Amino acid sequence: MPELFNVRTPPEAWRIFQEHFRPQVRTERIPTAQALDRILAEELTAPQDLPSFRRSTVDGYAVNAADTYGATPGLPAFLTVVGEVPMGQRAELEIGLGEAALVHTGGMIPEGANAVVMVENTQQVDEASIEVMKAVAEGENVIQIGEDVRAGEPVLPSVKQLRPQDLGGLLALGITQVRVALPPRVAILSTGDEVIPPEETPGPGQVRDINSYTLSALVTRAGGEPLPLGIIPDQREALEAAVAKAAEMADVVVLSAGSSVSYRDMSAEVINGLGRPGVLVHGVSVRPGKPTILAVCDGVPVFGLPGNPVSAMVIFDLFITPTIRALLGTDTPPKQQIQARLARNVASVTGREDYVQVRLEERDGELWAVPVFGKSNLIYTLIHADGTIQIPLDSGGVREGAWVTVFLH
Amino acid sequence: MPELFNVRTPPEAWRIFQEHFRPQVRTERIPTAQALDRILAEELTAPQDLPSFRRSTVDGYAVNAADTYGATPGLPAFLTVVGEVPMGQRAELEIGLGEAALVHTGGMIPEGANAVVMVENTQQVDEASIEVMKAVAEGENVIQIGEDVRAGEPVLPSVKQLRPQDLGGLLALGITQVRVALPPRVAILSTGDEVIPPEETPGPGQVRDINSYTLSALVTRAGGEPLPLGIIPDQREALEAAVAKAAEMADVVVLSAGSSVSYRDMSAEVINGLGRPGVLVHGVSVRPGKPTILAVCDGVPVFGLPGNPVSAMVIFDLFITPTIRALLGTDTPPKQQIQARLARNVASVTGREDYVQVRLEERDGELWAVPVFGKSNLIYTLIHADGTIQIPLDSGGVREGAWVTVFLH
Repeated sequence: MPELFNVRTPPEAWRIFQEHFRPQVRTERIPTAQALDRILAEELTAPQDLPSFRRSTVDGYAVNAADTYGATPGLPAFLTVVGEVPMGQRAELEIGLGEAALVHTGGMIPEGANAVVMVENTQQVDEASIEVMKAVAEGENVIQIGEDVRAGEPVLPSVKQLRPQDLGGLLALGITQVRVALPPRVAILSTGDEVIPPEETPGPGQVRDINSYTLSALVTRAGGEPLPLGIIPDQREALEAAVAKAAEMADVVVLSAGSSVSYRDMSAEVINGLGRPGVLVHGVSVRPGKPTILAVCDGVPVFGLPGNPVSAMVIFDLFITPTIRALLGTDTPPKQQIQARLARNVASVTGREDYVQVRLEERDGELWAVPVFGKSNLIYTLIHADGTIQIPLDSGGVREGAWVTVFLH
Repeated sequence: MPELFNVRTPPEAWRIFQEHFRPQVRTERIPTAQALDRILAEELTAPQDLPSFRRSTVDGYAVNAADTYGATPGLPAFLTVVGEVPMGQRAELEIGLGEAALVHTGGMIPEGANAVVMVENTQQVDEASIEVMKAVAEGENVIQIGEDVRAGEPVLPSVKQLRPQDLGGLLALGITQVRVALPPRVAILSTGDEVIPPEETPGPGQVRDINSYTLSALVTRAGGEPLPLGIIPDQREALEAAVAKAAEMADVVVLSAGSSVSYRDMSAEVINGLGRPGVLVHGVSVRPGKPTILAVCDGVPVFGLPGNPVSAMVIFDLFITPTIRALLGTDTPPKQQIQARLARNVASVTGREDYVQVRLEERDGELWAVPVFGKSNLIYTLIHADGTIQIPLDSGGVREGAWVTVFLH
């Protein structure tokens, strides 16, 4: 009566795996403009003050604030206009007491001025003079030198995933190249004598390959580079050769395994032959996904996933996504989470983590997670789901109405 | 005293814009394996049953369920093993009463059998016979033909954004090509005499271009294809030529405008000259972002955005993201939202929508949104923020502790 040996809880499995996995982040330098969603691999500090000159935030007149104190529509302050500051040029003018200069939004504040009166609060008297109808405080409507960032200040932490505004902030400082983590290469092997490429028509007993494609897409989403290596027949020599080649080419190897006991035993033996220490965990107390293999072979993480698409996806999220993130230098998961209320009781068993597919429904302004039940062999269970909830290890289940965290697909 | 004319609320502005905007979705056919995150542009139905044969979900023995009724470890059922079903091949065997066949997970159920006994619940007696120690019901451990999807059933709705499992579900059915929406081309023009390319060193009064890059990245995130057309000087002829070229090349034109009143007036005139009906909205009651232009010129949507990076981003999310999504055939926003509690009072003014940058903090297991205050000219306000909250039009503010929706960056 063959059985899985040495079944571990997910946290135990991850801890054992981490003891032998020493992630090395590979990096490259690329143009900042092309770095959207990449993970920064250096600590960046501002090479200069931003802005590098005092700027106006409005259209108006640069003035000495003191000249406007007490000004009202009934008793305006009278100022002499000494010129206009052109955009994109040094403000050559200097403002003396009782003087003002026209300045545009974003324009440079001239020497001698310390505030800007909005044009709406002024009235033109003649070519060379205005009335100011509202007082301004010192610094009002002015961005000071270094108010956005000061030279030498840290601007972005290492391991930050770069967003549109982060690119803007770097380019504003003239940082046109950045060092980012290289996407880890993840080799994907689909195995099984019953598996055929999707473009072929299956004969009796045959099914089309799904996992090569869903796993490749999951690798992309996690920030890795998928290397799908095709379908390997259930023969020991073929599997050994394919796994050895994969471990040479890639930073991570994933076997989407045949699910039969004899096949699982063969995968474990082949992985053990690949390098030290070999298989670390064989069997995890999680549903779906129990027949999972975690291994490190001469520094390369190797995973044996159950062949069922739902199990493969749950185990991918649980172990392979964090492995890819570690190789990117970060532990931030790429998936979004939201809170919702569980729409029906879900039973579980203490000592096992359950992952349940759910679809989201809004009812009276509240978000509900409705379990999508289905055998883990059914890909359409996943297609009808918007996300996954976890029923914890030490829980016998979760009651209808309870708040749960949904990890969105 | 020049002022914006005709200021509209955001919902009014969007309604007026929509009256003149008739989105045409352009499509292309691509390999399903490369369609991750693309928007489906056809309704797909299953061309076949999935699975196309009865499959076992476990390793075990295919049997007649009736032969196992009442079986227990103390009183097992005795069955004759007539062979093994090989993976990936038709089950040539036929099971009669009192007979069983070895079958692997995913293997084909032979004729005459209607259930599978797990191998763990059997005991080998000799080469050709087993004892069954637990009864199975009809259909137990069997996936029926069409249980995943039936031929002719709809599998994915049009306008669905394709996820990893969706690709798997299509490929399982042999759907190796799909029609998807083409990314709308969005031309981006940065204007202003003070703006220089990021690789140059700014002189006095000059600043590096930010918006070409942040807006390009926002276009990519929304599902569009950015066409950054560079920096245009504040001259009428140059702007006219650049906008005309942009409208010819692209499906959407975005001007990241100089912010001065005179410049804004010139942009509006240039856009009006581009085609009918021209400028529809000039000024939106939103902070930041009031000096916004919405236009449709001979069918092409044209947007004039404030030059400040924070305003530009708020207005992009408010009007340009939904425009890009409409050209993709969908109204689902690409951004994630989460709920959090506001960490301090935020004042606002009735009749104006305010958008406040927030950073997220977890305190005692609850998520709090902490406002990041800063002038809308400061790009680092956005860099320190994790998302944006909206203070509605009819609200005078939101109190500390209230639940708010955070639109994540």
